[in-house]
Amino acid sequence: MGGVTEPVSDEVLLARAYLSRVSDPGSVPVWGYVRSVGPVAAARAIAHGHVPDEVRRATASRRDDADPYADLEAAERHGIRLVTPETDEWPHFAFAALERTGIDRLKRYQAGDRKRAEAGEPMPPLALWVRGTAELASVGVRSVGMVGSRSATRYGERISAELSYGLAQREVVVVSGGAYGIDAAAHRGALAADGPTVLVSAGGLDRPYPPGNTNLFERVAESGLLVSESPAGCAPQRHRFLSRNRLIAALGTGTVVVEAGQRSGAANTAKHCRTLQRPLMAVPGPVDSAMSIGCHNLIRAESNPAILVTCLDDVLAVVGGSSDVPQISAGQLPSTDGLREVLDRLDPSARRVFDGLFARRFARPDEIAVRSGTSALEVIRALPTLDLARLIETGDAGYRIAARLRKA
Amino acid sequence: MGGVTEPVSDEVLLARAYLSRVSDPGSVPVWGYVRSVGPVAAARAIAHGHVPDEVRRATASRRDDADPYADLEAAERHGIRLVTPETDEWPHFAFAALERTGIDRLKRYQAGDRKRAEAGEPMPPLALWVRGTAELASVGVRSVGMVGSRSATRYGERISAELSYGLAQREVVVVSGGAYGIDAAAHRGALAADGPTVLVSAGGLDRPYPPGNTNLFERVAESGLLVSESPAGCAPQRHRFLSRNRLIAALGTGTVVVEAGQRSGAANTAKHCRTLQRPLMAVPGPVDSAMSIGCHNLIRAESNPAILVTCLDDVLAVVGGSSDVPQISAGQLPSTDGLREVLDRLDPSARRVFDGLFARRFARPDEIAVRSGTSALEVIRALPTLDLARLIETGDAGYRIAARLRKA
Repeated sequence: MGGVTEPVSDEVLLARAYLSRVSDPGSVPVWGYVRSVGPVAAARAIAHGHVPDEVRRATASRRDDADPYADLEAAERHGIRLVTPETDEWPHFAFAALERTGIDRLKRYQAGDRKRAEAGEPMPPLALWVRGTAELASVGVRSVGMVGSRSATRYGERISAELSYGLAQREVVVVSGGAYGIDAAAHRGALAADGPTVLVSAGGLDRPYPPGNTNLFERVAESGLLVSESPAGCAPQRHRFLSRNRLIAALGTGTVVVEAGQRSGAANTAKHCRTLQRPLMAVPGPVDSAMSIGCHNLIRAESNPAILVTCLDDVLAVVGGSSDVPQISAGQLPSTDGLREVLDRLDPSARRVFDGLFARRFARPDEIAVRSGTSALEVIRALPTLDLARLIETGDAGYRIAARLRKA
Repeated sequence: MGGVTEPVSDEVLLARAYLSRVSDPGSVPVWGYVRSVGPVAAARAIAHGHVPDEVRRATASRRDDADPYADLEAAERHGIRLVTPETDEWPHFAFAALERTGIDRLKRYQAGDRKRAEAGEPMPPLALWVRGTAELASVGVRSVGMVGSRSATRYGERISAELSYGLAQREVVVVSGGAYGIDAAAHRGALAADGPTVLVSAGGLDRPYPPGNTNLFERVAESGLLVSESPAGCAPQRHRFLSRNRLIAALGTGTVVVEAGQRSGAANTAKHCRTLQRPLMAVPGPVDSAMSIGCHNLIRAESNPAILVTCLDDVLAVVGGSSDVPQISAGQLPSTDGLREVLDRLDPSARRVFDGLFARRFARPDEIAVRSGTSALEVIRALPTLDLARLIETGDAGYRIAARLRKA
């Protein structure tokens, strides 16, 4: 983020493709090993079996059959690209929390606390297979995970579609899992508003799951993104569904549970949100519907209760919406030097970025992006204009409103 | 409570009837004056106009026309009796909190803080007009106020009726206001279970309001109670509706709001519950129904949020239900002296009362009644049996489990 990097080398791409094939999603030892020796050396060592025991065990079942050339070729045939932490498209901003929890868990694992590490925090993915026209890096700056029951009621599907329609209209990315019920309604609502939506699939992107949603997958790929941790050909298995939930929680600025039964994946999603310190929201419903039980239990949970949301404004208030009043607005500044006129001449994007700056504290582009409801890229693009207009000043820790504009 | 008192004198009855006619419900100066000089002297002084200015002002409009003889006669014709703080039937237990808030507010009023006293805590009533077969004093030991929108949906009415049916089956008194919508459904649910229900009316009991609920009023009177602060002939006016809400909150061990629009009386009820330190509960509903807005707002209120309840068990968990595990149960006691056998020979009522006793702290019958989910009267009836079995001991502050039964 924040600069142009070299295109990622084929060597790294091949290594990440190989790692994504041989490792189960969320493996602590494999992620730790890659982190320690780098992807290329890790892939080579795994292929030769010259790795620590726990890494060998975690990769044993697939390391001999893995063929990253074939996987990358198959991906290309299906219009799928591989996004790795070394590429510009990697969602560093959205995954910052996942990176942190991964390091925490790895430390406990390495300290020998294997048992706690087993059931621990979510791990970052080794790579992501991606298909579609949107750019993954822009996801998570302002996005909402929306999940819920596969056996949703018409009420749940309606609310889900209405919320995601409204979010998409405001260019908030709707992230969901492509399942029947709430997931599908969330994607459809966003598509209906011609808005961005991201579908995180539990299996390979060449085989939409459930098959009944094949058409939905195609429509999402046309204007949004299909994302999977698994290379083409991987069947969606139970553990992949659970690990998929962590990616939805990580890619969303916050996550909304729309309908959930008593025993549902919602509890799993809630746990991830808590661990990643992302707000969890839940939509209440009729108390005589079994599909409301999970949401009501999340709302009244004693520790880390979900925020009760009933409408689009409630969700925007949590994740930050364009209708939000910025904490420091240009209106609060003195109109010396014809400041108002200068601000009025700014293009809307630069103006939004200016409104996201603090008056006294320096902030990095990522942070400014969140505050101004735009992307880090847009912030970086706007900074020279703002600098030229002598509206900002630079420090080690980023940018802030120029001292000369501040009230005495 | 807790003993047999002399029947109340005709003089006091006449005085209270007069006061209930000349004063508006919840008048701070009138209640304070009655408290200071007693009802008989207060009534006489008001009739002659020899009273402090604010008492004169509060009673001026009606003091000349008031005829307590006629009011009591009219009441008798309609089967209505006057219950006063001097009678055994006065709900001292339920009104203890109201008495406390009344004294607090009176103190502020007398200290000259009239403005704050205007909008202050709820005041106790001067007397209550009552019609029906149930006994008012027993209300509030285990009872639930159930209120909500007059323009309820079928969902709200169904939930309200189901909850009150279940409560009534467990002999929890359902208290409501006799209005259309949620109120009527609450009363009907209790009646369907042949259970006790109390209808607190804003107008005189001779004229059911709304008239469309006349039949409901009759059915409540047959097995439960109609209650009003106003003598026969009083029309239900707006301020009487608001002051009526405080009586529902005071008579309920806790209050449930089932459906409420954005601007509803629910906020008023919530305020009373907060002031009286009674738990407030709210039932969530479909977010696309305007009748859910009030309940959702109560649940997510920043200060004193309502407890989210979805079913009978949730409500019983708040107000105490027969299925509750008592905090000190006989099972926790040592089985020396064949204690288990002694307990097993107790009749169920005495056994329940025993289970409501503390091991170390002395408690009054009122408190024991709440803890054991029974009435103060039943507690008093059971005490001699428990004493005879050497299961309890007596102190200045009430009763507790006999020291010989306690663990070392």
